[in-house]
Amino acid sequence: MFERQWKNYKGLAIMLIIGLIVGVAGGKLTFDSASQVQTNSVVSSNEGWVPPGQLDQAYMFASGGQSGNMVVFGIPSMRILKTIPVFDPFPDTGYGFTPATKKMLGKYTWGDAHHPVMSQTKGTYDGQFVWVNDKANDRIGQVDLRTFTTTQILNVPNLMGLHSLSTDPESKYLFTASEFSAPVANGKPNYAPLNTWGHQYYGVAACVNTNREGLKAGQPGKMGLDYEMLLPPYDYDLASVGKADSAGYVFYTSYNSEEATTDLEKNSTKFDRDLTLFMDYKAAQKLIDAGKYDAIINGVKVIDPRKHPGIAWLLPIPKNPHGVDVSPDGKWICYSSKLDPVVTVISMDKLKQAIAHKDYEKTTWGLPVIKWQDVQEAQIPVGVGPLHTQFDNQGYAYTSLFVESAVTKWQLGTWKVIDKQPVNYNVGHVAVAGGDSEHPFGHWLVALDKMSLNRFLPVGPGYPVTEQLFDISKGPKMQLVNEAPSDREPHYATIIPANLIHPLNVYPKDTARPNSTWNEAQAKVVRNGKEVKVYMTAVRSHFVPDNIEVNQGDHVDLYLTNIEQQPNITHGLAISKYNINLAADPGETVRASFTADKAGTFPFYCTDFCSALHEEMMGYLLVKPHS
Amino acid sequence: MFERQWKNYKGLAIMLIIGLIVGVAGGKLTFDSASQVQTNSVVSSNEGWVPPGQLDQAYMFASGGQSGNMVVFGIPSMRILKTIPVFDPFPDTGYGFTPATKKMLGKYTWGDAHHPVMSQTKGTYDGQFVWVNDKANDRIGQVDLRTFTTTQILNVPNLMGLHSLSTDPESKYLFTASEFSAPVANGKPNYAPLNTWGHQYYGVAACVNTNREGLKAGQPGKMGLDYEMLLPPYDYDLASVGKADSAGYVFYTSYNSEEATTDLEKNSTKFDRDLTLFMDYKAAQKLIDAGKYDAIINGVKVIDPRKHPGIAWLLPIPKNPHGVDVSPDGKWICYSSKLDPVVTVISMDKLKQAIAHKDYEKTTWGLPVIKWQDVQEAQIPVGVGPLHTQFDNQGYAYTSLFVESAVTKWQLGTWKVIDKQPVNYNVGHVAVAGGDSEHPFGHWLVALDKMSLNRFLPVGPGYPVTEQLFDISKGPKMQLVNEAPSDREPHYATIIPANLIHPLNVYPKDTARPNSTWNEAQAKVVRNGKEVKVYMTAVRSHFVPDNIEVNQGDHVDLYLTNIEQQPNITHGLAISKYNINLAADPGETVRASFTADKAGTFPFYCTDFCSALHEEMMGYLLVKPHS
Repeated sequence: MFERQWKNYKGLAIMLIIGLIVGVAGGKLTFDSASQVQTNSVVSSNEGWVPPGQLDQAYMFASGGQSGNMVVFGIPSMRILKTIPVFDPFPDTGYGFTPATKKMLGKYTWGDAHHPVMSQTKGTYDGQFVWVNDKANDRIGQVDLRTFTTTQILNVPNLMGLHSLSTDPESKYLFTASEFSAPVANGKPNYAPLNTWGHQYYGVAACVNTNREGLKAGQPGKMGLDYEMLLPPYDYDLASVGKADSAGYVFYTSYNSEEATTDLEKNSTKFDRDLTLFMDYKAAQKLIDAGKYDAIINGVKVIDPRKHPGIAWLLPIPKNPHGVDVSPDGKWICYSSKLDPVVTVISMDKLKQAIAHKDYEKTTWGLPVIKWQDVQEAQIPVGVGPLHTQFDNQGYAYTSLFVESAVTKWQLGTWKVIDKQPVNYNVGHVAVAGGDSEHPFGHWLVALDKMSLNRFLPVGPGYPVTEQLFDISKGPKMQLVNEAPSDREPHYATIIPANLIHPLNVYPKDTARPNSTWNEAQAKVVRNGKEVKVYMTAVRSHFVPDNIEVNQGDHVDLYLTNIEQQPNITHGLAISKYNINLAADPGETVRASFTADKAGTFPFYCTDFCSALHEEMMGYLLVKPHS
Repeated sequence: MFERQWKNYKGLAIMLIIGLIVGVAGGKLTFDSASQVQTNSVVSSNEGWVPPGQLDQAYMFASGGQSGNMVVFGIPSMRILKTIPVFDPFPDTGYGFTPATKKMLGKYTWGDAHHPVMSQTKGTYDGQFVWVNDKANDRIGQVDLRTFTTTQILNVPNLMGLHSLSTDPESKYLFTASEFSAPVANGKPNYAPLNTWGHQYYGVAACVNTNREGLKAGQPGKMGLDYEMLLPPYDYDLASVGKADSAGYVFYTSYNSEEATTDLEKNSTKFDRDLTLFMDYKAAQKLIDAGKYDAIINGVKVIDPRKHPGIAWLLPIPKNPHGVDVSPDGKWICYSSKLDPVVTVISMDKLKQAIAHKDYEKTTWGLPVIKWQDVQEAQIPVGVGPLHTQFDNQGYAYTSLFVESAVTKWQLGTWKVIDKQPVNYNVGHVAVAGGDSEHPFGHWLVALDKMSLNRFLPVGPGYPVTEQLFDISKGPKMQLVNEAPSDREPHYATIIPANLIHPLNVYPKDTARPNSTWNEAQAKVVRNGKEVKVYMTAVRSHFVPDNIEVNQGDHVDLYLTNIEQQPNITHGLAISKYNINLAADPGETVRASFTADKAGTFPFYCTDFCSALHEEMMGYLLVKPHS
């Protein structure tokens, strides 16, 4: 029955065996060349194989795109270690089922997570937080890597299509902007006809303060919106915060300098160069600190850069650039243009000189336009459809080519193309370990491919995407070592060595925690009129209390404390037909809050298989009818 | 930076190299022994490794537990090929965001998916459908494997904790039962105090007709509830439908013959044997066909088996049995008792004789109790904490041991234990390819382990579970060949060779499909008072229309047709801040239905990266304010 499929396996086995036979029977190989040959043909090709019981070497945090979550991969196995819900309810962990997480999600039950950003200290990934944007609903989520949970979602008003996200070398700030220009209106709907585009529609950039100092594990974050800046009505795509030589600047790409409002596929691709924007955020911060912002719109301080020379500039970059990526030393700003088969490298030195000399091409939308000829250092012929560039720790850059389905390796400084490897297929971003920081770790590159046709077993008309792992540490050629499908759709990922992540394995017992119960004798039901509070404990394998009777219409707040301190022993609590599922990890207190509006007899039970008597871990909620 | 973690890799590489060196430098190995040694040490241990570009050999459909979905793994790579949402909204695919899928989900936004069941023809997996239960909300979902989508969710009234699910060799029926006994009430709340347990609480079994003949790919299913049966108020755990020699019977396990209502961990574990139930469903069907049911409760025909001798019996089985599994030939009914270190094998021949002779031990709850001594064939000393048994195509059985963290292989007929292998850790179910059918495929076994402590990189207090793959085709010993973490929590899985699944890769162009639009010239906005219908097309890379203006308060029905017929080119449609995301696979028409209650300017855009100009695939929804 398996015959046809077994062929693959047999083919591999035979191939391996033949390889070994050649090694043995050939008899000419020296010790070195034998191991060399085998390293290439066997070990290298098996580099992605992590045998049972062995740990991965690195984490990859990939955005889940329209799934609204973040997905944690192990490298090199490419196994999915965990899904972290950010913008979507996730019953697995009770996310979106507790009052606290419901409040975080607000009125939305999904998000479009694009660009995860790892927190940095001194320009190096520090493994504390990952932030990620929601392009659909204009939010930024914060994931605490001590608990691998989402601890804050910040709504960013006044902009639409919050797409880019980038941080500075100390992760004090996050910068983003509107992919889609829209009217900006204070305290009223932002409606304006499309024919008012030139004067009523704006791009908007935003500066978010991470305020991460002193945050406790798993407790709510404190991100705040420092200010926003009005921009010309283009479509702001990606962002990269400067570092080292370019510290204090943030660079954006944009398309649609044509200001098209329909059929952008044709109408926003006409100009040879789009006007991209960069800003001096230290200068902007000084304005804010001095109270010199120009408006407060929906509670946000807003700068109009046209009124403050020396804050923002426009820089012409070839056709519809997607990625902008600053080299580790901050010297080179690398733009990947979707419709031009080159990466355009801008020199930060030259850019500073141009700014110092105020020698501009012209003014557009009240902003100075840099003479691109004065600042352009090189154009790298990477290939067709470049989208995004990352860097390693050896002075190399890696650019994804969507149209050509390849990744091109090139050298900073010499601007030489070193290698090009095919991917399968249509790569969006690439991620190198630490590849957007001052201090990349290198070694691993993942191509986040958008297509997977014929690459995996068929799963119907909805295909997975493909993540392909390359070893970039083995000399000039990148080596494909593993690949994995995933649900749609990681847009970007951040890779960090495993030893930089130090998560909790239990929530410490904290008897001072409000509404927690640590002793079964203190578990109880407290009634106050129609308000019922249940203080419940869970431990292998029973709940206390496990018989709860309320009256129809009562409001119930149930606080469940998992009193285990043994790692890996999570307890769930489902209440039949009440659409409630909680998950309490060891030492955690979680809450359900509901009105007992349905009368009847409702079993509740542990949803997380916790012991041989897990199924006996159940009880009854009886809701007595009105009459 | 990577140094500490690199050690694992280096260790492996060195080990492999040394292995090869020994093969070469030892000089004593013959051709055969060389390949033999390498087959064992390299190929065998790398058997789970599927190099980039190679396909898996089999699919595993695993339930997602409290995630509410189904997860498709590739075997032997253990890669996750796809998540199929069943009981939970899933923005990735727009599931729960279209009117049709919202209606299927009803008032629930999660489910607790436990037992996937593969459809069979003549006792062999046929790869057409997988059904799965929702223990929390008492539903059964149907997944169509032509599209890998959920096509029906059936609500099953009158029972609580719908846990078991099993089908007959032609998949005409699905059988399930209540894990949690509860009052049964017609047309009113099923409230009854727990002290009325003995006479107001019931277990309930249900027979669902799959009605799968003639179902079209991706179109709604037609499952229907044929009848239910009242049972004694025990907790019904798992079920297994008879086959071959036991065809026409269905066997259930149950715990809590003690009829405890609190602290079941202690109070439901007192008896040496629990009274499990089995029924003759052909006899039950005859009753139904003859109109001889005893009541209609909430629209369902209900049989009280106490009034119809020859339909249901009780069978004493040792302590709190979990799995009941019928051998492929139907001769042996194998019960795994959580608190007894044995699998108890019942002979179907002897059971039939006992029924024929009506030689019963006693009557309990009006049902005859089989003399277990007369029908018990063997007890296999499998080890501590047996939960579940599967079968291969060589006459062997495989039982999971939760407490002992192991899988035991034993032989049908001789009842000998052949092998025991550790797992990591605390295995729930096991799944063998085809292992619950008359014709198992064998070869692969997956242990669905509940714990993963120290098995994967740490991911905070919420641990993943572990799926461990064993090759059971290589002689007496089971060989661990791969493992993977997964989100909580697969409870059971069904494994099928890849060549038995034949999914569509696009939805065929169907111009007769209601509300579909296949020609951009026919795309349009139709207004009728406050009702607005948008007939939209999507193709790389633009929507038509892409400027839509409505008035605040209008109701909008938007029908999006992806007019591509190229596989893998899905288009999404997100509307900013309207909490809408659709996904239209090639050739598919999907619908959003919403009231434009928020005035303003709202970009919409493609969420599925479809081309180099994917980001230019956007438009504007303008909602004009009332005043």
